[in-house]
Amino acid sequence: MNNSRAEKQREQEANRSGELGQQAWNQLEKLRQEAPLVQCITNFVSMDIMANVLLSAGASPAMIHSIEEIPEFTPKAHALCVNMGTLTPDWLPAMKKAAEVANKEGKPWILDPVAAGATSFRLKACIELLELKPTVVRGNASEILALFKSSVDSNSKGVDSIHDSVDAVEAAKSLAQASGSVIAVSGAVDIVTDGQRVVGVQNGVAMLQKITATGCSVTALIAAFVAIDPLHVVEATASALSIFGLASEIGMDMAKGPASLRVHLIDSLYGLKQATVLHRVSISDL
Amino acid sequence: MNNSRAEKQREQEANRSGELGQQAWNQLEKLRQEAPLVQCITNFVSMDIMANVLLSAGASPAMIHSIEEIPEFTPKAHALCVNMGTLTPDWLPAMKKAAEVANKEGKPWILDPVAAGATSFRLKACIELLELKPTVVRGNASEILALFKSSVDSNSKGVDSIHDSVDAVEAAKSLAQASGSVIAVSGAVDIVTDGQRVVGVQNGVAMLQKITATGCSVTALIAAFVAIDPLHVVEATASALSIFGLASEIGMDMAKGPASLRVHLIDSLYGLKQATVLHRVSISDL
Amino acid sequence: MNNSRAEKQREQEANRSGELGQQAWNQLEKLRQEAPLVQCITNFVSMDIMANVLLSAGASPAMIHSIEEIPEFTPKAHALCVNMGTLTPDWLPAMKKAAEVANKEGKPWILDPVAAGATSFRLKACIELLELKPTVVRGNASEILALFKSSVDSNSKGVDSIHDSVDAVEAAKSLAQASGSVIAVSGAVDIVTDGQRVVGVQNGVAMLQKITATGCSVTALIAAFVAIDPLHVVEATASALSIFGLASEIGMDMAKGPASLRVHLIDSLYGLKQATVLHRVSISDL
Repeated sequence: MNNSRAEKQREQEANRSGELGQQAWNQLEKLRQEAPLVQCITNFVSMDIMANVLLSAGASPAMIHSIEEIPEFTPKAHALCVNMGTLTPDWLPAMKKAAEVANKEGKPWILDPVAAGATSFRLKACIELLELKPTVVRGNASEILALFKSSVDSNSKGVDSIHDSVDAVEAAKSLAQASGSVIAVSGAVDIVTDGQRVVGVQNGVAMLQKITATGCSVTALIAAFVAIDPLHVVEATASALSIFGLASEIGMDMAKGPASLRVHLIDSLYGLKQATVLHRVSISDL
Repeated sequence: MNNSRAEKQREQEANRSGELGQQAWNQLEKLRQEAPLVQCITNFVSMDIMANVLLSAGASPAMIHSIEEIPEFTPKAHALCVNMGTLTPDWLPAMKKAAEVANKEGKPWILDPVAAGATSFRLKACIELLELKPTVVRGNASEILALFKSSVDSNSKGVDSIHDSVDAVEAAKSLAQASGSVIAVSGAVDIVTDGQRVVGVQNGVAMLQKITATGCSVTALIAAFVAIDPLHVVEATASALSIFGLASEIGMDMAKGPASLRVHLIDSLYGLKQATVLHRVSISDL
Repeated sequence: MNNSRAEKQREQEANRSGELGQQAWNQLEKLRQEAPLVQCITNFVSMDIMANVLLSAGASPAMIHSIEEIPEFTPKAHALCVNMGTLTPDWLPAMKKAAEVANKEGKPWILDPVAAGATSFRLKACIELLELKPTVVRGNASEILALFKSSVDSNSKGVDSIHDSVDAVEAAKSLAQASGSVIAVSGAVDIVTDGQRVVGVQNGVAMLQKITATGCSVTALIAAFVAIDPLHVVEATASALSIFGLASEIGMDMAKGPASLRVHLIDSLYGLKQATVLHRVSISDL
């Protein structure tokens, strides 16, 4: 590749990155204006931080998981987040019902297959949810690989990934093609794919792994972003991952450890300004 | 109104405000000395912050919701807080049983009808609890209006209010008269009424709405204050709302966003001093 | 005792304390390297802080409590923590099953008998778990006394202790002898005993009692330490109590109240350095 072609490509990439940063900002601004109602059927560990992340981003969270309420409430929500964290069998019917209502109403819903490969009970439940065609599935590499292989991971360390996100790109693409869902894989680089395109998100800090339920929270944030821009699911998913990662980067400048990072991350998410987003969002086509 | 009459009225109001500030301080001081045991049957999202708010105020929280324990435990508690947040049908019998035991034992109990107007299942459950005659009901304007009208709100945004507290004053008065409960309506100005008197609380900051379960927490704090001064339910309720709001004001001076506000609010509640309370509590007859 | 004997004893004590400090550091370092998987079946209030404490210490928490998953998941865990906090009858079978699997697999498991003396339902459940021979039982003095006496405490204040840890030393020793478990009693001085030896831990700050679920969290930390050094259960238990207490001491230097203490405690636990541990860990034979 000669110099002028290399230059041109760099310029195109910069333009593209600028476009995606602008799009992320536009979505965040709209999110703050419209405050989409995000219904979360989620695990007990995540409820506090997830609700606070959604509130700080500008969304309106509703932790409502009773099956009695779903036919009446889910249609009012602008998006649904289903998280398998502290699963027991009695939660499954409400999860499925909510997914079905969301589908019927044309509302986006997002699946977080927490620790999908940890046990066969959990894997089966995740696969049953996957068959209900979530708009997006967000997991770490181990979770996405477990779903792709439909197999329990004998080395599973519960909720923590033992694989890198880049190891899961091909699995994510295949899973996206097979399921029809956009697949997002969190990691050092976050991956988002609809089975054709693959987008990478470089924002984020390693210390996020030392705060419980940050993965769960970003899944809920994806729900809020997709609610805002349902025609651009890949981009909205990448924006949510990038905005959350960026808030963690800014928080990291002030943090002295995981607990203060959690505080500063949420504060930063609340206060994110246009110039920062345009300058620091790092999303690129892979 | 001529000058001297206006002056006299201002003076009376200042005196009255001073009295209410003194009373709030007296109640807080007694709360810290006596550490009332407050049983909380509450939603999953709120448990952590509610327990921490109660501890910081000087109370002793007990998150005990098993129906097996209620006949033996609720009589030991000094007050009971029942919160409908993440309601499922299996929680209702324990909520009702605890309310009945509290009534029988002459212990105050406080109802938080979270998202009462969101679904008919939830509205019905809240009304059934209301019929068990809570000492105080604390909600936002939308929740109190839903209870007053006994109707589901088709515009409901889940747990977030779509009405101002001042819009709900007449509804709150009527609901207080009909139910026999003191009704508290949170908002830019908090309203407390027993159906005759109406008291306003001006403390608090808007950013509280960006922290999940602050409403739930202040309901639990009302339970602690009413436990301390059960003969002055309106005043104790107003004191709790004011003290919590004041702690948020002090916290706001240090906060950079919702997550640091949460930290500073709880710290401030723990450290509140007499001079600050006397100087800044803002409760007035409306 | 003459001067030279007194001097010699002081020297021996200093050496012994130095040994225990070195051992605590070795265990913490190994914990950070090996990241043991700690399964927690715990109450709703504690889940967030417990997971974050484990993560900050270097362990990998998994809040998995469904009985369907236990036969497959518990064998993968390196330790199990069972906490009776927000107990309902439906949680008991999974708790017992997990304890049995842990025993069968030779994995350590730790029992936290929260509010054991509050009601007969809770006491009975705690005793049934105790009969399954936990490796360690960690409670406050009131909880350990309730287990020792097998009786409900009519003065119980729920989760808060109404006794000092030193009042419970003899009860703890007897309970350890009768049960075969190591017993840890939290308090101003933490006590650890296997029925013969008694070790005291002087680290910690009083304000920990104003943060909900710090007791629950240190129980989970004991599970992580015992997973790392299963042949030295008394020492590992004392190390966990001491390291957590030390983190609270460092946090206290920066804290302005209970909520900032919680943040600084977790940050400090994450960042604890060898020199600090060797210098400040205070464990001694009693």
